[in-house]
This record gives sequence, structure tokens and C-alpha cells, in this order.
Amino acid sequence: MLELYHCDPNANSGKPMMALHEKGVPFVSHYVDLPNFGAHDPEFLKVNPEGKAPVLVHDGRVLIESTQMCEYIDEAFEGPPLRPEDPRERWRMRWWSGYMDRDFGPSLSMIAWSRFIGPMHRARPPEELERLLSRVPDPARREAWRTAIFGDFAPGRLEESFRRLGVGAQRLEEALRRSPWVAGSVFSIGDIVAFNMAGALPRLFPDMANAKSMPRLTEWIERMRDRPGIRTALAMDRGALRNAGRPPT
Amino acid sequence: MLELYHCDPNANSGKPMMALHEKGVPFVSHYVDLPNFGAHDPEFLKVNPEGKAPVLVHDGRVLIESTQMCEYIDEAFEGPPLRPEDPRERWRMRWWSGYMDRDFGPSLSMIAWSRFIGPMHRARPPEELERLLSRVPDPARREAWRTAIFGDFAPGRLEESFRRLGVGAQRLEEALRRSPWVAGSVFSIGDIVAFNMAGALPRLFPDMANAKSMPRLTEWIERMRDRPGIRTALAMDRGALRNAGRPPT
Repeated sequence: MLELYHCDPNANSGKPMMALHEKGVPFVSHYVDLPNFGAHDPEFLKVNPEGKAPVLVHDGRVLIESTQMCEYIDEAFEGPPLRPEDPRERWRMRWWSGYMDRDFGPSLSMIAWSRFIGPMHRARPPEELERLLSRVPDPARREAWRTAIFGDFAPGRLEESFRRLGVGAQRLEEALRRSPWVAGSVFSIGDIVAFNMAGALPRLFPDMANAKSMPRLTEWIERMRDRPGIRTALAMDRGALRNAGRPPT
Repeated sequence: MLELYHCDPNANSGKPMMALHEKGVPFVSHYVDLPNFGAHDPEFLKVNPEGKAPVLVHDGRVLIESTQMCEYIDEAFEGPPLRPEDPRERWRMRWWSGYMDRDFGPSLSMIAWSRFIGPMHRARPPEELERLLSRVPDPARREAWRTAIFGDFAPGRLEESFRRLGVGAQRLEEALRRSPWVAGSVFSIGDIVAFNMAGALPRLFPDMANAKSMPRLTEWIERMRDRPGIRTALAMDRGALRNAGRPPT
């Protein structure tokens, strides 16, 4: 039995959703409302005491960390390969995944929290917000949530995050000028990871990335959206971001 | 032809050094004096314009990022496998690598810079220090170097780093209670990555990790040191940390 606890098909949750659908592996879906503190719900903490999603449960065994999960999905199940055969393309796939997870993703996340999610949470009654924050198990992550919600970033950090998004978009454009997919000649987990982080760039920041300034990036985004597995995953969106800050149901 | 640009066998440089020696793959060694700004030397920047080491050059093609490099080494060359066969152990290997790279490693690095390396650099003439800093190509990394050298960390960050080291040591102790190696039943890249970050803990912070408080961790460190490949890599140490802050030669 295979179960996936996930939020909407973007950022980290989207990675295993897309990997499973691209691979054609059926799974039981459990929705976790991440921007609305769903991962700190006592019931969910029984699944992952760290209070983070996505979580994959395969025959009762728990696997976390979305990018590593994708390699597991490719190694543990039958279906079309999600990784190139060539060791160098495989290295490039992992380089892109690491870069997006470490640099581009956190930059995008900081901007999203500062602009969209934080203000919605700040509209809550302060005591309710404190109660929700107190459920975050790891103190470092609790502080990160607090910083994100109150937009309390160190001076220049937000500008630095925008700069990094621009660098990342440019790097993607250049990579996709050299080869049709992020890692090279074939679709791979590298595309899944990059698309989950950068797929919304032209919509969110058209000045940074548009069909004229970044033709390869925008064409690749369209090509990703047209893949049946990606399309099926995208159809599972429930709009958690739009609903952030509403009272938990 | 295979060339490796590396510093001493710890942190990131140690990973490919140990992977290559464990695998029995010969390589040409180029020493880069990282704590002494060697990676920002104009000659080295021709190899890696990002100014980071280690760098692997295989038949003229450049590969960066030490953990991904280790998987490449295992996939591209003959020799004893550095990764478990079992997909779940392989996931655990990647989980440990990711955790050490993302959380434990940066915490250790912050402490090392604050306690050992920063003070040595601050003894330099200010104009020489500025000249060296100006060679760091990426502005974000230039700021990180400046912060590290001047010990200019946000309040509480150093305490938080110590807390994280303690959590990591405890996690390693628990993992090694369950199985002989970090990922499970066999030696893997997970051990190499964890050892490069945590191998010096009992020596640097005996109050945090010693044979009595962490018997599995200390026994595993000894077991790692006894492996011929690891031993050969460790013998390549040139003491860059001891020499940090001396005038570049």
C-alpha cells in the first residue's frame, strides 16, 4: 500500500505527486493544508513528528524529503524511468535538484510568505496565531514560521531573494537553450523539481520571466504542463494558498 | 583523465576524496587552500567560476557539488559499490546526505569560522582582507565570507548552531544503534558525508560527544578511520585550518 500526504502540486508536495503520476503508480492521497498549519495538526504529527509534508508511506514505512522521495519512487516501482541513463546527465539532474531546493526554492518561499501568505495570517487574532505557532515541533522551524508570518526578515534579505530568483530563471533559460530538458536529453526528476519551484514565475513575476525575455523557459513550462502525468497532478490543486489565514476547518 | 581540485579531507572536499579512494579510482590531485581564499585565486576561477571546491574534472568535463559528485563517482566508475542495493536504504543514504549538507554541516561551519578561522583572518591588515574578499565572485557568498570572518552572526545563531550539532550527534547515535552504517546494512556515501561533517565532533566538542555518552557514534568514527580508502584520503591532510590567516604563498 502506498499513501502520500501532500498539499497542492507545487513546491515540495508537487514533486512526489508528479513523479508518481508520471510513473503511473497508484497511491492513496491525503491532503495536508500546509499554509494553514495543517502539518502541525496532532493527527498529522503522528505520521511525521517533524510536522513537514510531503510524506510517503510505503507498506507502513515512512519516507520524507521530497526530492529524495522522487529517486525512491523511480527505484522502487515499475514504470517509465524518471532519471537519465547517462551518469553525467544524472549528475546534472541532481545538481539542478540541489540548487533549486537549496537556493531558488527558499528564495521563492520567502517572497511568497512576505507578499501573500504572511499578511493573511497576520489578520488572525494574536492568541490564535500563538496557539498555532506553539504546535510547530522544531524550535528552529517555529522561529522560521514566525519570521515568515510577521515578514520579519533581516534587511536586504527580500531583495537578495528576488536577485536569486532572477539568477535562477536565467540559468534555466541557458540550460534549456543547450538541451530540451533540464538535465539534458531526457525528461527527469530535475525537470519535476525545477518546474515545482519555477513553473509559476511567468505568472507571478512577468517582468522577470516572460515569453519574450525567456522563450525557452516559458516553452518548457508549457511542455511540462502538457505531459499527462504533470497534468493529472496539477488537477489535484485545492487552492491552499488562496485559503491561507482562514480559520482551520 | 580524472582530476580533483580539493582542500583537506573533511567537510565537502573529503567526500569525493574518500569516494574515489574507497572505489579505487586513481585521480590527479590539485590542492586548493580553501580557508586561505584559495578558491578565489584567478587561476582556480578558470576551473570553477563560482569559486568553490571541490571540483571534479572528468575527461575535460567539470562537475561540482560534492555529494552529487559522489553518486557520479559510483555510477561512472568500476569498483566496490558506494550505495546500497535496497531502494529504502538508498533513500536513507540520501536523507542523511541531505540533512548533513543542509543542517548539520552549515552549523558546524558557522562554529568553526566563529571560533577558529575568523579570528585568524581578522589579524590580517584590513586592506589585504578587503582585497581578498573582493575576489569572491558571488555577492551572496562574499557577504557570507564577510559575516564568517567578522563573526557577525545574528543574535542567537551561534547557540542555535550548537543546538543543531547536538541534535545531529544524537540522531547519528540513534541511527547507528539500529544498524551498523548510517543508511542501514552496508557502508555508503551516507557514511562518507556524515563522517566528513561529524567525524571530528568527539575531538572538537568532547562534552557533546564522547565514548561514554555516544558509544555508537565514536565506534563508527573509529571504524570509518580504519577503512583503507578513508585512511588514504585522511593521509592527504595538509593542515589548511592550522594555516588559515597566514599570508598567501
